[in-house]
Amino acid sequence: MTAAEAPAHELDFIFSPKSIAIAGVSAKEGAGMGGGGFVSSLMEIGFPGPIYLIHPTAPAIRGLKCYKRLTDIQDQVDYVISSVPARFVPDLLEDCITKGVRILHLFTAGFTETGDEERSKMQEAVVERARAAGVRLIGPNCMGLYVPKARMAMMGGQPPRPGPIGMVSQSGMNAGEFVRYGVPRGIRCSKVISFGNGADLKAADFFDYLADDPETEIIVAYLEGIQDGPRLATAIRKAGRSKPMAILKSGRTEAGSRAANSHTASLAGSLQVFDALCRQAGVIRVESLEELVDMGVAFQFVKRLNGPRVVVVGGGGGASVLAADDLAAHGLEVPALLPETQEALAKVTHEAGTSIRNPIDTTSVWEDVGFEGTLMPCANASNVDMILYHTGFGTGPARRYGDLSERMKRQVAVLARVQQESGKPVVVSVRDSTTEEGYAQGREFTELCWRNGIAVFPSIARAAEALGRLLQWQAMHEA
Amino acid sequence: MTAAEAPAHELDFIFSPKSIAIAGVSAKEGAGMGGGGFVSSLMEIGFPGPIYLIHPTAPAIRGLKCYKRLTDIQDQVDYVISSVPARFVPDLLEDCITKGVRILHLFTAGFTETGDEERSKMQEAVVERARAAGVRLIGPNCMGLYVPKARMAMMGGQPPRPGPIGMVSQSGMNAGEFVRYGVPRGIRCSKVISFGNGADLKAADFFDYLADDPETEIIVAYLEGIQDGPRLATAIRKAGRSKPMAILKSGRTEAGSRAANSHTASLAGSLQVFDALCRQAGVIRVESLEELVDMGVAFQFVKRLNGPRVVVVGGGGGASVLAADDLAAHGLEVPALLPETQEALAKVTHEAGTSIRNPIDTTSVWEDVGFEGTLMPCANASNVDMILYHTGFGTGPARRYGDLSERMKRQVAVLARVQQESGKPVVVSVRDSTTEEGYAQGREFTELCWRNGIAVFPSIARAAEALGRLLQWQAMHEA
Repeated sequence: MTAAEAPAHELDFIFSPKSIAIAGVSAKEGAGMGGGGFVSSLMEIGFPGPIYLIHPTAPAIRGLKCYKRLTDIQDQVDYVISSVPARFVPDLLEDCITKGVRILHLFTAGFTETGDEERSKMQEAVVERARAAGVRLIGPNCMGLYVPKARMAMMGGQPPRPGPIGMVSQSGMNAGEFVRYGVPRGIRCSKVISFGNGADLKAADFFDYLADDPETEIIVAYLEGIQDGPRLATAIRKAGRSKPMAILKSGRTEAGSRAANSHTASLAGSLQVFDALCRQAGVIRVESLEELVDMGVAFQFVKRLNGPRVVVVGGGGGASVLAADDLAAHGLEVPALLPETQEALAKVTHEAGTSIRNPIDTTSVWEDVGFEGTLMPCANASNVDMILYHTGFGTGPARRYGDLSERMKRQVAVLARVQQESGKPVVVSVRDSTTEEGYAQGREFTELCWRNGIAVFPSIARAAEALGRLLQWQAMHEA
Repeated sequence: MTAAEAPAHELDFIFSPKSIAIAGVSAKEGAGMGGGGFVSSLMEIGFPGPIYLIHPTAPAIRGLKCYKRLTDIQDQVDYVISSVPARFVPDLLEDCITKGVRILHLFTAGFTETGDEERSKMQEAVVERARAAGVRLIGPNCMGLYVPKARMAMMGGQPPRPGPIGMVSQSGMNAGEFVRYGVPRGIRCSKVISFGNGADLKAADFFDYLADDPETEIIVAYLEGIQDGPRLATAIRKAGRSKPMAILKSGRTEAGSRAANSHTASLAGSLQVFDALCRQAGVIRVESLEELVDMGVAFQFVKRLNGPRVVVVGGGGGASVLAADDLAAHGLEVPALLPETQEALAKVTHEAGTSIRNPIDTTSVWEDVGFEGTLMPCANASNVDMILYHTGFGTGPARRYGDLSERMKRQVAVLARVQQESGKPVVVSVRDSTTEEGYAQGREFTELCWRNGIAVFPSIARAAEALGRLLQWQAMHEA
């Protein structure tokens, strides 16, 4: 079913507003905090429609005309962001109802998550009134939406180019961090949703939506609590069966549960139950934001492995031994090279008399001929399912090449050609730098890789973990 | 026992040569590879004595006079580095014997690690001859020594300032990587020893030495194989009981064992047996180089914890929840704040009506008064053993401050004062940056921290793991 054929999901309207109103932008405030942050983010990503500001006294803020009330705006408003204090939210909601606005994003915090009974009741009253009037709520206590196609951003630095990954996050910070860490590694998103307390719209609603969304091919999530358990389970099963999916579930310890409760009023629930649900739904559960980004990279770039057998290529004997350990610890194999592969490699290696073993630790990869002459026979071998090339910058041989940028381009061209011609994934690990120059070079190489369709990880251990999980995911879905 | 009182260890002479000869520096070669690399490293760190080069034809290389043979040098030579091909090593050894040189470092590879029987026999013959003549060997197939006090370096970029950490490594790359990753976090070394195949001097010898060495307060190691098992066990027990110690043991999987064998001819041995030995000796076993560096930081900067109770301070609700999980997963506790602590914090917090909970996620830490007003009452609380402050650069509030460098200095002064006055460790986590500017700022903040005696980790999870292990280490030694 193509996008054109897909019937509209009932939440579709949320993700394509043509105009936005923001209540609670301080006239004094600079860019970056509170409501003003949304103004900056929307302007930076290039939201094409009008942005209306609601302010009791200011005539204009940052060049945008202010209206005393939402109902003073003449034109249609598709989406309202609330950054007013919690006590003013009921009035803003009434104005939304009057104005015919169907979606209100409550950045406003200070509701149930405070632990205060009065404020919990206020949240309940707001939800009840909104539901009765047909207004949907995102939040409260959340960053809302990042939708590249609609040019909506929740924070600065979020790129306008869309991609296949849909994200659901109970925490605005973790939604932002997923994007921030994912972007330099090529992760691009269809929709990112921070939903905070989930007073009205909850994780279940968004999973259901992303499962149907033709623009979303992969789903990742950060969850703190279990709301509306049976409905959430149904939505996770639906999403997990239809698309590759990974969830970072916090509150996995008692201390974490307590923190989750104070952050988004979440009841973390039993990790065992959640784990069983994930297995049943074919969803990968991870334990850190880094692992969630790594799974995004694996799903978006590696996609599928034919098996667990890896040839490891890169300089450094000690690194090779640790690489073999890390790969084996995550269920991958480092097979001995076949005689015909060794024969082919002997043509380009300098270390005569040394048999060529896997991991391959040879200086010949630092020459263009040797690089392709090492990788291609390995990738084409019948006992190999993927290549892992590990490298680093700011130290070692790389430091000595004056034409490093050109060398990088040639290396990545070889990596891409090997992946293309062998039909087997080529995965790259660029280890941490310890100098600013090395950091910049590592970023440059990483970008070259993903732009050429190659997955990059910041260490062999993290690559091994994500690749092992990709195999697990396949086993759950291909059994 | 002070350094002055300590009797000389029989290996002392190895670590304080006054003159060095290097055999096998190519006349064509630039800096950085093979024997030339040692010339560069020694010059860079400022080795004060003469460096003699041995070359069959060249009169001088890089300004250093060349001698046809070691025996042609008139003056005393204390230390010889061999970068000649393996087949020339026996002749070089004979010259060492003639010249009265007592230590030969064989960077030269191509012996037992090749798997070739002939070359194994050659290694055996070299060891036998050296032992008979009273010459000790480091290697073959290794990077040798980094000894700041003697101004000896094995690689470029190794700082001349000594410190408390002694390292023993079977891999030259991993020795170099430990130093490279450790230096920006304040790790400084007494002696770093890469010993490769360990044909003569082995891990056991170096552990025994570092256990007695008054300049070494902490011992870390990277081992691939078990050589001379009973003697190694004795040395690890001696070292582990006398000083804080952590070992990264590779070859923990079958694939890793095979790689270790091909790298340094090591027999990895059973991990279970090694684990039992570590527990018995009170040694922490880690599984990655990153973890080894983290333990070095914990031992050098945190030193000792009074208990497992942490107050977590930093911005971002999602990060706080994950922090609580990470800490609890490593045996640390995130206690509720006492009423008197909450009362003190209420004076500086902006979020009125919100009770202040641990983790503390408040914007008041971005102001100087709020920062100290938040940290000090927490550190002084009777139910708290340490403070963990987490931050990041290149994004969020930090991006908006023009005087960031000055703010950093004020923040670190507060952190140092809190650590000093409360007598409880303050630990900092600086999360990964995604921009070059943020990377540079993170490095600047990290350096300010360790120069003020504060431990820094690159993530909350890694801090939690190292702190949990420090508690484990204390439990083994204080039981």
